[in-house]
Amino acid sequence: MTSTAENDSISAAVEVIGDRWSLLVLRGVFRGLHRFGELRDDLGIASNLLTDRLCRLVEHDVLEKVPYQDRPVRFEYRLTEAGRALSPVLVAIMQWGDSYRQDPIGAPTTLVHSQCNAPVENVTRCTECDEALEAHQIRRSDERTIT
Amino acid sequence: MTSTAENDSISAAVEVIGDRWSLLVLRGVFRGLHRFGELRDDLGIASNLLTDRLCRLVEHDVLEKVPYQDRPVRFEYRLTEAGRALSPVLVAIMQWGDSYRQDPIGAPTTLVHSQCNAPVENVTRCTECDEALEAHQIRRSDERTIT
Repeated sequence: MTSTAENDSISAAVEVIGDRWSLLVLRGVFRGLHRFGELRDDLGIASNLLTDRLCRLVEHDVLEKVPYQDRPVRFEYRLTEAGRALSPVLVAIMQWGDSYRQDPIGAPTTLVHSQCNAPVENVTRCTECDEALEAHQIRRSDERTIT
Repeated sequence: MTSTAENDSISAAVEVIGDRWSLLVLRGVFRGLHRFGELRDDLGIASNLLTDRLCRLVEHDVLEKVPYQDRPVRFEYRLTEAGRALSPVLVAIMQWGDSYRQDPIGAPTTLVHSQCNAPVENVTRCTECDEALEAHQIRRSDERTIT
């Protein structure tokens, strides 16, 4: 079976994060929930599913287990460098959800720059002209098709 | 079971796109694959799984079915406005994959601005000071925690 899905960076990434619970666990950790019980209560997820997702995220070096107590030893989950680098993915997902999937009852989540207090936005921009780009303005350098 | 996962924009979004195959199908459509057979061959996905994911994406108004032939009638899949608006999510995922999950054999995918030919980047930026922000510089407006 020939498949281009096997060898590009999107497919490599979705092997790790292309899963509803993994994304929700990461959302929780970004929001400051680091302990098993906190995440379980926040997500309403079954313990075995949470254990599975945390193990996978640790295995893929997105989270790391850090002891916070000695006797008995207990761990919490912290973002690694690769985990912190997922911030744009989560912000992009949130922004899309706000625009297209928001429950009409809920108010959109506003993220702000902690220094300016101004709203933040996720954009794909040109590194040369700084323009925020839409899909039809982007192409792969080796092809004429857009991404 | 109380869960905050039920009512925010990330969880609403991951109901639609928090799935490996859905993300790979979208990647294919963004790259110009619009027909069932093209997507099936590109992804090496079983037909029943592809049917399921295409139906879900149509149901959630991310893709639309457009007839391209009359007798017999045949459809192809096109991005809706909401679908095109997923471009930053896919670019952010690709960028993360390039940095942290890239198969050492494969070269990273370079996306360029079709007008400038300069590389593009996905960033979360401040709408006031234009700075590209990392996770620790972002907080929710209603809280002190980060994303």
